[in-house]
Amino acid sequence: MIKVGIVGGTGYTGVELLRIFASHPEASVQAVTSRKEDGMPVAEMYPSLRGRVDVAFSSPDKARLTDCDVVFFATPHGVAMAQAPELVAAGVKVIDLAADFRLQDVAAFEKWYKLPHSCTELLKEAAYGLPELNREEIRKARVVGNPGCYPTTMQLGFAPLLKAGVIDASHLIADCKSGVSGAGRKAELSLLFSEASDNFKAYGVSGHRHSPETVERLSKLTKDKVGLLFTPHLVPMIRGMHSTLYARLTKDIDNAALQALFEDAYKNEPFVDVMPFGSHPETRTTRASNMLRLAVHRPDNGDTVVVLVVQDNLVKGASGQAVQCMNLMFGLEETTGLLQVPVLP
Amino acid sequence: MIKVGIVGGTGYTGVELLRIFASHPEASVQAVTSRKEDGMPVAEMYPSLRGRVDVAFSSPDKARLTDCDVVFFATPHGVAMAQAPELVAAGVKVIDLAADFRLQDVAAFEKWYKLPHSCTELLKEAAYGLPELNREEIRKARVVGNPGCYPTTMQLGFAPLLKAGVIDASHLIADCKSGVSGAGRKAELSLLFSEASDNFKAYGVSGHRHSPETVERLSKLTKDKVGLLFTPHLVPMIRGMHSTLYARLTKDIDNAALQALFEDAYKNEPFVDVMPFGSHPETRTTRASNMLRLAVHRPDNGDTVVVLVVQDNLVKGASGQAVQCMNLMFGLEETTGLLQVPVLP
Amino acid sequence: MIKVGIVGGTGYTGVELLRIFASHPEASVQAVTSRKEDGMPVAEMYPSLRGRVDVAFSSPDKARLTDCDVVFFATPHGVAMAQAPELVAAGVKVIDLAADFRLQDVAAFEKWYKLPHSCTELLKEAAYGLPELNREEIRKARVVGNPGCYPTTMQLGFAPLLKAGVIDASHLIADCKSGVSGAGRKAELSLLFSEASDNFKAYGVSGHRHSPETVERLSKLTKDKVGLLFTPHLVPMIRGMHSTLYARLTKDIDNAALQALFEDAYKNEPFVDVMPFGSHPETRTTRASNMLRLAVHRPDNGDTVVVLVVQDNLVKGASGQAVQCMNLMFGLEETTGLLQVPVLP
Amino acid sequence: MIKVGIVGGTGYTGVELLRIFASHPEASVQAVTSRKEDGMPVAEMYPSLRGRVDVAFSSPDKARLTDCDVVFFATPHGVAMAQAPELVAAGVKVIDLAADFRLQDVAAFEKWYKLPHSCTELLKEAAYGLPELNREEIRKARVVGNPGCYPTTMQLGFAPLLKAGVIDASHLIADCKSGVSGAGRKAELSLLFSEASDNFKAYGVSGHRHSPETVERLSKLTKDKVGLLFTPHLVPMIRGMHSTLYARLTKDIDNAALQALFEDAYKNEPFVDVMPFGSHPETRTTRASNMLRLAVHRPDNGDTVVVLVVQDNLVKGASGQAVQCMNLMFGLEETTGLLQVPVLP
Repeated sequence: MIKVGIVGGTGYTGVELLRIFASHPEASVQAVTSRKEDGMPVAEMYPSLRGRVDVAFSSPDKARLTDCDVVFFATPHGVAMAQAPELVAAGVKVIDLAADFRLQDVAAFEKWYKLPHSCTELLKEAAYGLPELNREEIRKARVVGNPGCYPTTMQLGFAPLLKAGVIDASHLIADCKSGVSGAGRKAELSLLFSEASDNFKAYGVSGHRHSPETVERLSKLTKDKVGLLFTPHLVPMIRGMHSTLYARLTKDIDNAALQALFEDAYKNEPFVDVMPFGSHPETRTTRASNMLRLAVHRPDNGDTVVVLVVQDNLVKGASGQAVQCMNLMFGLEETTGLLQVPVLP
Repeated sequence: MIKVGIVGGTGYTGVELLRIFASHPEASVQAVTSRKEDGMPVAEMYPSLRGRVDVAFSSPDKARLTDCDVVFFATPHGVAMAQAPELVAAGVKVIDLAADFRLQDVAAFEKWYKLPHSCTELLKEAAYGLPELNREEIRKARVVGNPGCYPTTMQLGFAPLLKAGVIDASHLIADCKSGVSGAGRKAELSLLFSEASDNFKAYGVSGHRHSPETVERLSKLTKDKVGLLFTPHLVPMIRGMHSTLYARLTKDIDNAALQALFEDAYKNEPFVDVMPFGSHPETRTTRASNMLRLAVHRPDNGDTVVVLVVQDNLVKGASGQAVQCMNLMFGLEETTGLLQVPVLP
Repeated sequence: MIKVGIVGGTGYTGVELLRIFASHPEASVQAVTSRKEDGMPVAEMYPSLRGRVDVAFSSPDKARLTDCDVVFFATPHGVAMAQAPELVAAGVKVIDLAADFRLQDVAAFEKWYKLPHSCTELLKEAAYGLPELNREEIRKARVVGNPGCYPTTMQLGFAPLLKAGVIDASHLIADCKSGVSGAGRKAELSLLFSEASDNFKAYGVSGHRHSPETVERLSKLTKDKVGLLFTPHLVPMIRGMHSTLYARLTKDIDNAALQALFEDAYKNEPFVDVMPFGSHPETRTTRASNMLRLAVHRPDNGDTVVVLVVQDNLVKGASGQAVQCMNLMFGLEETTGLLQVPVLP
Repeated sequence: MIKVGIVGGTGYTGVELLRIFASHPEASVQAVTSRKEDGMPVAEMYPSLRGRVDVAFSSPDKARLTDCDVVFFATPHGVAMAQAPELVAAGVKVIDLAADFRLQDVAAFEKWYKLPHSCTELLKEAAYGLPELNREEIRKARVVGNPGCYPTTMQLGFAPLLKAGVIDASHLIADCKSGVSGAGRKAELSLLFSEASDNFKAYGVSGHRHSPETVERLSKLTKDKVGLLFTPHLVPMIRGMHSTLYARLTKDIDNAALQALFEDAYKNEPFVDVMPFGSHPETRTTRASNMLRLAVHRPDNGDTVVVLVVQDNLVKGASGQAVQCMNLMFGLEETTGLLQVPVLP
């Protein structure tokens, strides 16, 4: 049994890790830290876990994380980089669900997250935790930076087109929509039911942290200069993410060949479902599961290709992907503990 | 492997059976009938099942249900009683998720469902599929009538009080609230998003079919005459049911003893969670799982006891409970395939 | 033009007052106070009011509320009683949307609101602001305590039955359901979209502040001792309230006579709509309007009468009712500025 | 008083017309037709209108529409063109909320709506009912084709840029999101609460009827060839529309000048609100009102301008705009009856 520690178990990615591990056959949660909730059984805060999870929160000093085999950070940005060195030194693998180990460009990190990076040595060796594009690095990694939710959809949607060199990489547009849980479990007015329900809005249109991360990774797939216009929006639903990706074709390619680019790229991927050409994937078809589904369109047979990508932002967009990385890092079957069937309706 | 047939797989209880069986280790769906969708892969109608369920709908004549070990009817009332005799004669067990085998009182059935009962012989031997109150009958049954969603909550909430004889059985009140999926997958105006969202209403206040069913079963638990006032309401959420039960105490009993009635009654039940006295269970703590949770209150230490009961109407209130019955009928561990952790948030 | 001041304009009842006054022909908002937002145009916080409301928030010291004709307190409990004496002394009428002037029983107030009452003199003369039951007092009042949202529905639903003396007043049950805006605009985790959406729960079952208020007022309608069991629940919708009221009949009365009790009681009321016997009013039929609708049921022609009452908790349950009181206090037509048609769908 | 007739009053645009006219001081609804509901009071189907609207549905033959001054068609495509000639001949003005009089290109109409156009003579003289771009034609028109909901946002968002000639007209992208009421009041499975709630999806990506309409109208604003990629999505909210518009700048223009293009274009428009540069308009700030709000962005000061446009799809996107046209056609103040303040929260 893999001994798992979770730092920051009170947020949505933390409780989602707990939900996944409650039925993971090869791993067991030993410690969940929370400074504020020391001693409180996890199931008291989340009664959904009554009878299924019997650990209690413990303060970081008591949690003995160095006895774990792997520690997940489901914390604000900046926490993982402070604690990772001690853990890695003790032989513990680290998976950060925040941004500390996502961006290799330290200056970009410091600009967007307004934090000095305190752990650039580990950053250098850290693997970017998107298995479909980076599986071998993850297998060998001691530290994994789990991708942002939006970047997962943008990369898996644009990658086959960029690799094939059939689009203008300099003017990609990603019009993305996320359920409210993507903003985390924070007591903020704008996230109240009475504010976010029956409403739709864009946010961060002038610039969002997930843009540099996505550009950095996409740039590894092409020699062209990547330019990305990324517009996030907030949808009145709890879970789910839908990215509508636009790219201008630069090569003469027919629709069957376009579709084949995607089918070939993902034919062995257990968590990427390429739907028939022209489909309209719905976010709910991935609800509470680690599946990402996508479909390719070419409106009016014109020069623009549209890729629709959906996932559950808390699973493939966060905690499920992190467990997928853990499975790889420990030599388990990649799908272990991750085959929950989507909940529909 | 238990060979499973499903009649009527296009509705919500049908697709929920498919979701559960997709990860049930001891049973496998062989046939799903639909007259209209003959030949269509199930996963085409429900893309959430892509890659996980590969049967196609077949018309009833081709489905060869008599080769199955058990057939579930996820159909309108009246279908199961027409087909059950042939199946039972062929040695196939039958579990009906509709009302055909719920009410032993044929006259009451015919009054409330406006159908003549065509299968009263099998009705006599049919077991009422509420394991917590009727486990031994279910184990031996060839035919099971799966309870209604509301009746499950009302019976499990009132049963400990009635058995202990501490309440006035003649004036029970059940003020119940259901998510919209409880009304089924029907193209009706009143169920449209634009009608049911951001809205709340009661319905069927003058009388509802789940009332006679509940009274018939509760009457088996007490010698007193049972009187029930049942008021259903529609909540703008997909899944979930909350029943607020009121009963007047007739015995002098303190709160600890009240609580003990429930804890004793359900201490060995894997799917009934008695929460601490005075708790407020939320429907989402049971979402997509087979758990039912309840909590006991006694406002102002007065003479009325209030029991709050929550469940997922499609799981413990329908398809999960049906699989729980199947597990019993085939000698499996009762929880097999039913330990999905509730999805929260 | 009546000069209106609003203390606490940043919450939901405050912005609802602003919405109503934006089209009230006889009153004009002169000042809206907010300590934190001093100088910020109201329409910057609430862009729905852009072009329609051009006042800015001002700190209480600059607001010159004593120059107003009437001041509304859309504040937490305890604020109005601190400021009312100075205003009343200056000839300004006061309408409190919080609880300071609702309960004549000071001990009950102090027990439930955990505040000493600092203004018992004005409390004695304060009118309870439910026009349908207390119109003449309101007309003459200098200070009005606006009813709670739940109490409005409970009183208007039970009143005709209590006045007629046809029910057992000692065991009233009110099973009430409120939209989330009823909890106010507060940055609390339990009110987040991701917590409150797709969910249903009861709260405060062991005791709620609206109970003593309702009992005090209902007791004025009957010589019997009033006993009330009040159970509030939270519905995943922004606005709307539905109260399901249960009372045991003690007199032999037929359904037509029952219905007539309500029709007679409210036949001249512009904001109370008695629907046909046996109807199921929906909350959305009152959305964004000052209407309250109710319907009477008698399930199985038994001894229990059920009254279903709906309203918009922010209008008839709060700000609309407050303006209705103001209209009475200033001799205006009672419906002035309050005839917005409900928004459906 | 203007005598108003409504053909097809049972759908959402019909009931929205009724809501608006219930407080319109210069017009009065004389007849509402519905073949199926002949004789039923409108307020029985829509209890939100009880006490406010007292007409009943009448079958078309009894409705005497030729006695009206104006008739609105809130009907499926094809109905207005069949009935308009008789009405116009009788001196009645016609406003069609469907598509019969939107497209001057008859071939395009017949291709997209799969109907032969039976009334091309009136089509030629019909005015396109978007007052901000076509006010003078509307004033003089006998027949108005009311714009589609999406086209209203796309035209008002792109118009200032196209007129100024600062963007590449050939590659406009409109990523649009609509509340569910935009699909009408139809008993379709995909519109059920249990299907559309907690979900997000695109639809019609390969081609949508609102595209040719928008291109035809935008082409009048520029000599360049207009190319539009339009992607509609469905949002789990009742009302509201958000269009995210992308255009590549072809001229060197700074942000202040960009903003000025919009402020100048709409400075006298009562129903178009140009928000400060870089704002994020929310759909709820227009809920139940005739306002359209927009904001201009230029991410990273790059070569792409992004315009965010919001409106209530049933008001400015349909019935409110139709009444705005009527006001113009009858010489009334354009805002008459249309100054409802948006409902927030």
